[in-house]
Amino acid sequence: MTKKKFRARAFFYPLTTIIAGVDINDKPNFLTIAFCGMFHYKPPMLYISSGKAHYSNQGILENETFSVNFPSVDMVKATDYVGMKSGKEIDKALLFDVFYGELKTAPMINEAPMNHECKLVKVLDFGGTNEIFVGEIIQTYIDEECLVNGKPDIRKIRPILFSGYNNNYLEIGNNIGQAYKIGRDYEKK
Amino acid sequence: MTKKKFRARAFFYPLTTIIAGVDINDKPNFLTIAFCGMFHYKPPMLYISSGKAHYSNQGILENETFSVNFPSVDMVKATDYVGMKSGKEIDKALLFDVFYGELKTAPMINEAPMNHECKLVKVLDFGGTNEIFVGEIIQTYIDEECLVNGKPDIRKIRPILFSGYNNNYLEIGNNIGQAYKIGRDYEKK
Repeated sequence: MTKKKFRARAFFYPLTTIIAGVDINDKPNFLTIAFCGMFHYKPPMLYISSGKAHYSNQGILENETFSVNFPSVDMVKATDYVGMKSGKEIDKALLFDVFYGELKTAPMINEAPMNHECKLVKVLDFGGTNEIFVGEIIQTYIDEECLVNGKPDIRKIRPILFSGYNNNYLEIGNNIGQAYKIGRDYEKK
Repeated sequence: MTKKKFRARAFFYPLTTIIAGVDINDKPNFLTIAFCGMFHYKPPMLYISSGKAHYSNQGILENETFSVNFPSVDMVKATDYVGMKSGKEIDKALLFDVFYGELKTAPMINEAPMNHECKLVKVLDFGGTNEIFVGEIIQTYIDEECLVNGKPDIRKIRPILFSGYNNNYLEIGNNIGQAYKIGRDYEKK
């Protein structure tokens, strides 16, 4: 294959789209984020990365809590809207049915089929444009109709993917194989 | 919606499947990883999270380099195989056409349509099962046939998604909207 060499580029395909929930100035605020991911299962730890100028960041630092909500494809317009407007300008608490869990200061979105309540573990700063908030999941909420055999089914959650190069949202596609099985007898041709 | 409350669970949908490349004991080794993500665009920084017992980790620490390779759906069997077998047991260098870039110790997979060469910035340990390797992308390689208007097209890259609850690999699905546009006039119903 002929490869084109680029100077460092932050292409990453696909990104997962989540909506972070934060209390700030005594009100819930929400923020769409695609720079996010898991660190490990045990303890269940994840991160969200947010531009340093974002309104929500101060709320995370003050309360040391945040939520991670997985919107489904039928929430794509709301998800996009929340990512475009700042909580300085509009009251995003009015956009969703908001609920709270154990931590009391991590507002969650009832319409989103899966929600994690997180406790701030660490704020990372590598001298870049963003602050990275590391959180431990302390409680998870899932719509009962999205559960199959007691676990959330990705086809019922219907998460939103993000493609950065052309700013497109996508849905998940077909299954292409079972992990720890399909490659068992792989041999290079 | 009726929510089921779980004690903390590390559900994250979907995960992006990459193959990390590492030099260890003077040989290239490869490792399938789904706990990975972007930290920020500027500088372009990402992380990969690897179980502490993994053979590759020592190589990252020694060379302070690694690569992140995005396999396409037609590489799903090789991707699964590489994630099941340890480099202690098999020579994974034989599985791919390997090339090196600027860093000399970050082996990359020619068959994978997109590759990042990364310099280790930091190793994070939050007392969990995994080590988190933070890397700065210093060079990116993309198959010329995957470029559209000079940028990698996600439909040509055809990345592999991972669904953790049932260990399924998936492909990307349809576009569902343009970011920074589809939600512009959103109002809650």
